Amino acid sequence: MTTPYLTPLGPTELRDAGVPAPWAFGMADRVRFGEIDALNHVNNVAYLRWYETLRVHYLDHYDIYNLAGDKPKFVVKSVGLDYKAEVKRGASYINVTRTVALRNTSFTMEYATFVEGQITTTGTCVAVLLNFDNTKRALPDALRDALMTRDGAVQA
Amino acid sequence: MTTPYLTPLGPTELRDAGVPAPWAFGMADRVRFGEIDALNHVNNVAYLRWYETLRVHYLDHYDIYNLAGDKPKFVVKSVGLDYKAEVKRGASYINVTRTVALRNTSFTMEYATFVEGQITTTGTCVAVLLNFDNTKRALPDALRDALMTRDGAVQA
Amino acid sequence: MTTPYLTPLGPTELRDAGVPAPWAFGMADRVRFGEIDALNHVNNVAYLRWYETLRVHYLDHYDIYNLAGDKPKFVVKSVGLDYKAEVKRGASYINVTRTVALRNTSFTMEYATFVEGQITTTGTCVAVLLNFDNTKRALPDALRDALMTRDGAVQA
Amino acid sequence: MTTPYLTPLGPTELRDAGVPAPWAFGMADRVRFGEIDALNHVNNVAYLRWYETLRVHYLDHYDIYNLAGDKPKFVVKSVGLDYKAEVKRGASYINVTRTVALRNTSFTMEYATFVEGQITTTGTCVAVLLNFDNTKRALPDALRDALMTRDGAVQA
Repeated sequence: MTTPYLTPLGPTELRDAGVPAPWAFGMADRVRFGEIDALNHVNNVAYLRWYETLRVHYLDHYDIYNLAGDKPKFVVKSVGLDYKAEVKRGASYINVTRTVALRNTSFTMEYATFVEGQITTTGTCVAVLLNFDNTKRALPDALRDALMTRDGAVQA
Repeated sequence: MTTPYLTPLGPTELRDAGVPAPWAFGMADRVRFGEIDALNHVNNVAYLRWYETLRVHYLDHYDIYNLAGDKPKFVVKSVGLDYKAEVKRGASYINVTRTVALRNTSFTMEYATFVEGQITTTGTCVAVLLNFDNTKRALPDALRDALMTRDGAVQA
Repeated sequence: MTTPYLTPLGPTELRDAGVPAPWAFGMADRVRFGEIDALNHVNNVAYLRWYETLRVHYLDHYDIYNLAGDKPKFVVKSVGLDYKAEVKRGASYINVTRTVALRNTSFTMEYATFVEGQITTTGTCVAVLLNFDNTKRALPDALRDALMTRDGAVQA
Repeated sequence: MTTPYLTPLGPTELRDAGVPAPWAFGMADRVRFGEIDALNHVNNVAYLRWYETLRVHYLDHYDIYNLAGDKPKFVVKSVGLDYKAEVKRGASYINVTRTVALRNTSFTMEYATFVEGQITTTGTCVAVLLNFDNTKRALPDALRDALMTRDGAVQA
C-alpha cells in the first residue's frame, strides 16, 4: 500500500502549496471536529499538539534520533505560541517547522501554520538533548551539520 | 493547491489498500505522538476521537447535512468500541465507516481501524437526527435513499 | 497539605451527594472549558476520558494492582457509552463506577455520570488482566474477593 | 450538595498549601492517566490545557465577564510555557495564576504549577478583550480596578 497522503512535504511541495522559503519541512492536515472549541474555532491548545506531532515527524525524517548518539532523549524546555488569525472548522492547513539556532545541548525550532497561503499561528520551541539518565548531552557534530545544512540553523 | 492526501478514500482506494468490501468510505492517517499513552500504545480514548473525526467527514462527503432538511442536528446516542489489537507509535492506519441500519429518527454506523490490512479495533454508533430545538426528526426519504444506495443500509 | 477535594468519594459521601446505592466509588469534578465542543456541550469523547481517569483511581484505591499478582497489566477489551442528557459548560458532576461481573481473566465495570442527582451518561467496560508478556492471567482469588465484597460483583 | 473540593483556592488556602505570595488564585487537581505520555510524564501540551481551564475559572471567579461590558469576548493572543521539572503519574498539583500587567485592550497573566511546594512549570498568556464583532475593546475601568486591587496588576 502506498500512502503518499501521509508523507511529509519537502521544499518543492511546500512552494507548490504557497509556503515560502526557507520553510523546508511540513505536513498537511485538516481540522478535526474535536479541535473546535466553544468559540467555534480551533482551540488554542490544539496548535501545541499539532506542533508536537510535527516535531516527532521532523526528528524521524531528519534522522535526528540516530544522529544524536546512543539512546538519546529529547525534551522540550520551553514553547511559545502567537495566535494571529483563527482557523475554522473544515479548514485544511499546513504546519511547518525548522531549526533556527543551535546551542551546546539544545536547539531552537520555529513553527508556523499556513491556511490558504496565510500564516495563522507561529510558534517556537527549545528542545534539549538528554542522556538516558536525564543529564544533558552536547549536540553531536553530525546532528549540528544536518540541522545547519538542511535548515540553515546557526550556532547561537 | 491540490491536497489528495487529505481526501477521503472510496471503494477503489480502500481495496487497493487491502480493506475489503463492503467498506466504502475511509480516511488514512498516522498515529500522533500525543495519542500514545503510558502503556506505549494508542490510548483507548483516541479511537473514539478518530471515529468522531471520520463521522464528520462522512456526513459532509455523503451530503447528509443537506439531505437531512432544514438546520439538522446530529447527536450521538450511544457508542461501543471493541479493542482487538493494540496500535503502536508510528503506525499508519485507515479508519472506515458505513451505515448499516436505519430507524425512524436514527441510524446505526459501524467503524473499523485497519493497520496493514488487519482490523485492530471496531466500533458502533447510533446517531439521532434532531431539529434545532432538540426534538427528534424522522430521517427524510432522500437521506434514507442515500444511505441504502451507498452503504447498503437496511431498514431496522 | 491536606487535599480533601482530591479524594475519591465513598458510599457516605455519595449518598450525601444524591447518588443512590449500590454506587460506592466516585469522584467529583467540574467540566473543563476544553471539554466543550462546537455543539456547546461536553464532547462525547470526554466521557470516555473521564471514565478512564476514574478507573485508574478505582484500581489504585481498591488496591487492585497489588491484589492482581506480580507485575499485572490491565487492558480494556471493550467499552460502551450511552448518552442520556447533555452536560453543559460550568457544570459540576460526579462520576461513579463499580465492578458488576467477574469472568476467568476479566471483569465488567459499570459507570455513570451524575449532574445534580440525575444520570446523564452511563458506560460499561470489560477489563482484562494480563501478564507482562501480554498473555492472559486468571483473576487471583484475593482480587475476586475484594470486588465481590466491596462492589457486590458476581461470578458471570 | 456541597462540593468544597471543587472550589478555587484563595490566598489563605494557597499559603497553607505552601504556595507563596503574591499568588492569590489557584486550583488543585490530580494528574489524569490520559495526561501521561510515552515518556511517562505529564505531556507538555497538558499544561496549556490546565492553564486554559484555570483561566476560565479565574475569569468567572473575578467576575471579569461582567466587568468587561456588554457581551465581551476574550481571546488569547499569545502564550509561553517554561518546563522546569517533569510531573509524574499520580501526582497532585496546584495551578495558580494572576494578572501582572494591563494594556489598552489586553492584559498579561502569569501561571505556575506547584507540586509539593515546588514550581515545575510556569506560563504566560496575553488575553485580548474583543467586541462581539471581533474588534478590540478598551479594558473598562472597573475591570482594571479589579485586576489591580486583587492581583496587583500594573499599567504597562
